[in-house]
Amino acid sequence: MSIGKRLWVIAEGYIPEGGAHADDPRFVSHETACMINIGDQAAEVDITVYFSDRDPVGPYHVRVDARRTLHLRFNDLDDPAPVPRDTDYASVIESSQPIVVQHTRLDTRQAELGLLSTIAYCE
Amino acid sequence: MSIGKRLWVIAEGYIPEGGAHADDPRFVSHETACMINIGDQAAEVDITVYFSDRDPVGPYHVRVDARRTLHLRFNDLDDPAPVPRDTDYASVIESSQPIVVQHTRLDTRQAELGLLSTIAYCE
Amino acid sequence: MSIGKRLWVIAEGYIPEGGAHADDPRFVSHETACMINIGDQAAEVDITVYFSDRDPVGPYHVRVDARRTLHLRFNDLDDPAPVPRDTDYASVIESSQPIVVQHTRLDTRQAELGLLSTIAYCE
Amino acid sequence: MSIGKRLWVIAEGYIPEGGAHADDPRFVSHETACMINIGDQAAEVDITVYFSDRDPVGPYHVRVDARRTLHLRFNDLDDPAPVPRDTDYASVIESSQPIVVQHTRLDTRQAELGLLSTIAYCE
Repeated sequence: MSIGKRLWVIAEGYIPEGGAHADDPRFVSHETACMINIGDQAAEVDITVYFSDRDPVGPYHVRVDARRTLHLRFNDLDDPAPVPRDTDYASVIESSQPIVVQHTRLDTRQAELGLLSTIAYCE
Repeated sequence: MSIGKRLWVIAEGYIPEGGAHADDPRFVSHETACMINIGDQAAEVDITVYFSDRDPVGPYHVRVDARRTLHLRFNDLDDPAPVPRDTDYASVIESSQPIVVQHTRLDTRQAELGLLSTIAYCE
Repeated sequence: MSIGKRLWVIAEGYIPEGGAHADDPRFVSHETACMINIGDQAAEVDITVYFSDRDPVGPYHVRVDARRTLHLRFNDLDDPAPVPRDTDYASVIESSQPIVVQHTRLDTRQAELGLLSTIAYCE
Repeated sequence: MSIGKRLWVIAEGYIPEGGAHADDPRFVSHETACMINIGDQAAEVDITVYFSDRDPVGPYHVRVDARRTLHLRFNDLDDPAPVPRDTDYASVIESSQPIVVQHTRLDTRQAELGLLSTIAYCE
């Protein structure tokens, strides 16, 4: 069984700086690209990050193994460069195998968390 | 009238452990797959749960009766095994009849609730 | 210009009872179907509400005028019957003209509000 | 590489008035249309705002440069007229080039923020 697409876009991107819970990784503000690969072959995934006022950066490379999910925090990307905080960005995700991508942000700049999520765009 | 699809994917999954409201079922942190079957025949639904570091678990089986909705909490699944807490997962939902699936999380790890929701992916 | 579809489904539905702000209509917990009719003819819209354990109720009828938006609170529906609180439901929206539908919940059971939103399903 | 569509609709729109953080632009309640233009040509974008009880207003014009993202706050639109606060609206976004649009609201009417996001509708 194969399901998904090879090209996805997340137009929203913003990792808030700081917050009330910097000492607990679960509650550090973060944005996540949730990816699932239902197929039998590992998916090689390239992520390019777009900005409002400078050239795109990337690709960042990750692998999603066969029959696995990967919830990738943009906070953790650092090669070729960390994703800047408090900065608008967007991302394009290209995969060698069909995958499904969903986008989530946990915002803990204030004492109580905020959450958002949406399916990414594919065509 | 028939509407919907037979194959759905939710790439995001995470049931937070604990929280401020463990004594009130309405406010226990949970993730829900909201399903609606508009047709005249019951939908037999198989759910498989994918992880980042182990083989998929399932299928979990539920029925959505004709002309009914079922808001299924992943917290309540226990056959063949409970869905682990504080663990990234994703899910694939296969139905014998066309259905529509929407995904929701209520996060009450902190005093004030957080909510997210998105339409699941279908093709 | 015409844009949209005539048949939409919202699988998630739940109007929380009570809350901290019952005296301020802006902050009463509510669910909304946001509809936009870009065309030149009024859209006659029928909404049917589905439940987990009883037959569907409806249709509820509303009109979305030409070149107008209507953000309809499910809380305000009362003909043929109010939408019960603290009850899982789902809804099917049928329109005589193409429209676009987005779903939003404001949850104010606690002191601080929670929000969710997603595009409805169409085919 | 070209990805996206030229016509997008956001049925939900509402900019809350006031709030607890009026002195910090990051925390002023706002609604944003996040747009990304992956192509090699600047996208000329026209936004028309629809209301429940009056004629549409617009177009508002913005440009999304080639290989750039623009996270446009509806709060900042003022030509031909500001978007009224505490008022239901919806928006239609037409672009000269393919783009992808995602919609986000940050609600800070109360001390703790609320967030929502969803992919816009395209066809």
